[in-house]
Amino acid sequence: MSVLEQTLAAIRPADRQAMADARAHQDRLTKPRGALGVLEEVAVRLAGVASACPPPLPTPAALAIFAADHGVHAQGVTPWPQEVTTQMVANFLAGGAVANAFAAQVGTSVTVVDVGVAADLPQAAGLVSRKIAYGTADMSLGPAMTVPQAVAAVEAGISVARDLVAAGAACLISGDMGIANTTASAALICAFTGKDAAETTGRGTGADDATLSRKIEIVRRALQVNGVPGTRVDEAGGSVAGAVRTLAAVGGLEHAAIAGFILGAAAARVPVILDGVIAGSAALAAAALAPDAIDYCVAGHRSAEPGHAIALGHLGLRALVDLELRLGEGTGALLAYPLVSAAVRVMHDVATFDSAGVTDKDV
Amino acid sequence: MSVLEQTLAAIRPADRQAMADARAHQDRLTKPRGALGVLEEVAVRLAGVASACPPPLPTPAALAIFAADHGVHAQGVTPWPQEVTTQMVANFLAGGAVANAFAAQVGTSVTVVDVGVAADLPQAAGLVSRKIAYGTADMSLGPAMTVPQAVAAVEAGISVARDLVAAGAACLISGDMGIANTTASAALICAFTGKDAAETTGRGTGADDATLSRKIEIVRRALQVNGVPGTRVDEAGGSVAGAVRTLAAVGGLEHAAIAGFILGAAAARVPVILDGVIAGSAALAAAALAPDAIDYCVAGHRSAEPGHAIALGHLGLRALVDLELRLGEGTGALLAYPLVSAAVRVMHDVATFDSAGVTDKDV
Repeated sequence: MSVLEQTLAAIRPADRQAMADARAHQDRLTKPRGALGVLEEVAVRLAGVASACPPPLPTPAALAIFAADHGVHAQGVTPWPQEVTTQMVANFLAGGAVANAFAAQVGTSVTVVDVGVAADLPQAAGLVSRKIAYGTADMSLGPAMTVPQAVAAVEAGISVARDLVAAGAACLISGDMGIANTTASAALICAFTGKDAAETTGRGTGADDATLSRKIEIVRRALQVNGVPGTRVDEAGGSVAGAVRTLAAVGGLEHAAIAGFILGAAAARVPVILDGVIAGSAALAAAALAPDAIDYCVAGHRSAEPGHAIALGHLGLRALVDLELRLGEGTGALLAYPLVSAAVRVMHDVATFDSAGVTDKDV
Repeated sequence: MSVLEQTLAAIRPADRQAMADARAHQDRLTKPRGALGVLEEVAVRLAGVASACPPPLPTPAALAIFAADHGVHAQGVTPWPQEVTTQMVANFLAGGAVANAFAAQVGTSVTVVDVGVAADLPQAAGLVSRKIAYGTADMSLGPAMTVPQAVAAVEAGISVARDLVAAGAACLISGDMGIANTTASAALICAFTGKDAAETTGRGTGADDATLSRKIEIVRRALQVNGVPGTRVDEAGGSVAGAVRTLAAVGGLEHAAIAGFILGAAAARVPVILDGVIAGSAALAAAALAPDAIDYCVAGHRSAEPGHAIALGHLGLRALVDLELRLGEGTGALLAYPLVSAAVRVMHDVATFDSAGVTDKDV
């Protein structure tokens, strides 16, 4: 079996008994029932992931930033030059980006993974080279990747997840860098949810009105040129081959790698906090490959990109942070990490009505 | 001059020049302009608070939980017995409450301040006794407090803020405990914004439909009995005496103390992260006493209580965390603390386009 096949075979749904135990435990804690709102469900989810109540604290956590370039950049879908991908990789490795500041603040490691940057990168501490191509091909003219390239990118993500867990990570955090990658995200969200490009396509990191119109047109063309509406995973009954074909047709190398990162987390029974629209679209691909993998995901934040809310709705995930971020890099997921930790910490530290001698209104 | 008068005289608006410098600095950092959304404004606000760009990291932070009881409890506005206030104070001091778990997670100290619990509390480490009364009087029958009691409670909050800052706190976090205290919050929000009780009153920590109807009726009666619509601060031109009279009429001792805590933070030029609807209603009182004090506030979270959004709108504050929490204790503000820290950290750690050699699309 291939690494992808082995991984898919290893993924099980979250443990429903541990989740039920976690819900019952929440109700005994010295707080009104349900008073921690969305965080109670986060703790329940992590109990299901770990098959344990209370679940272990998600510490330490590891951020992986998957970096790649995009052939569709040539169509003028973003005001940023393509070389910014390479420059930002250098910035991550030097510790100068927002993701580094947030990672330092919340105490997570940072690993940068080159799955397809359009330049040769010098070796550096913290950089993992899994380059599959010097960027994708232009999806508005044909498939962005070959199917073997897409599988290789997914498997790169799986192996990064495995390696980080083997090194001790109890929680994975997804990040991305790739100028033009919100264009591929919009196309993937159309492909996996059936929405029109006008609904899924946003301004990314700063497209003006003219660029946004062009971007929507390019997303439509990419879907049409690649016949993607005809291979929609929903319609194809969720076949693995169909999902990989869609990913190859209109995805990015980092999207494919993040899909693999999610699958790798699920196979290792470790939670993964998703960043914004890049991770959200990659999670749609992961869900098409293995629906149970989504049990292992926590939506870190809701991006300002309109397609992200559509993707989260489709996945049944609710974002923890909603602060109009539109940066990527894993920044939104890093901000969510202390919230996830706090949700789990409650399950360990908080007294019960009985143990604390507090009167319970419901007993 | 009284402590209150001295404090009001010491409050200055946030430093507009430092805020402009912070905005300009944000635009030089290696990220698209505005890409950190709401967090950019948090960093700008903290620059204004500290009169420095970048502002100092808000570390260490100190949580103060102001605890008190409410005479209006006798009207059946909550399903929880009044003794739960005392029991939860013991739980905080034993480290067993959710606020303790969150404080441990984000690394802040916890101080519990008795400003009006309806029982004698044994001395304990972490407990500050500033008891003004054994709970308020029933506001549905007359004023909850005398004016001197309200002033004493405000001054208790001021002195707690001063003491925590003197002990090294660079950021204050507001918390509360008081069975029935969302009833007083709803009344204060009506008084300071002119809204009807039906809009400001919610289920607190678990009122059923019948209790909610009674609670709305009691809030209306309290406002009427005390003639509060006639002394509305908005209408009274924001006089200090008017604000104190309103606080005394329909507030709680912890509401008055938290208003003082905000004033104390502003006078010390230290940021204060507000928790939910109790702090939001107290902040309306603080704003009536000293409008510039709100420059020093960060809204930690948006509570599920409907009056809270009204209060935040009136104050011009946007909450950072929105997870349907309805617990109080400072829990929502504690969750926001790492977000505030991250926002400031960006100003210290992140490279500029020039320093990192990253191409800026806008230059």
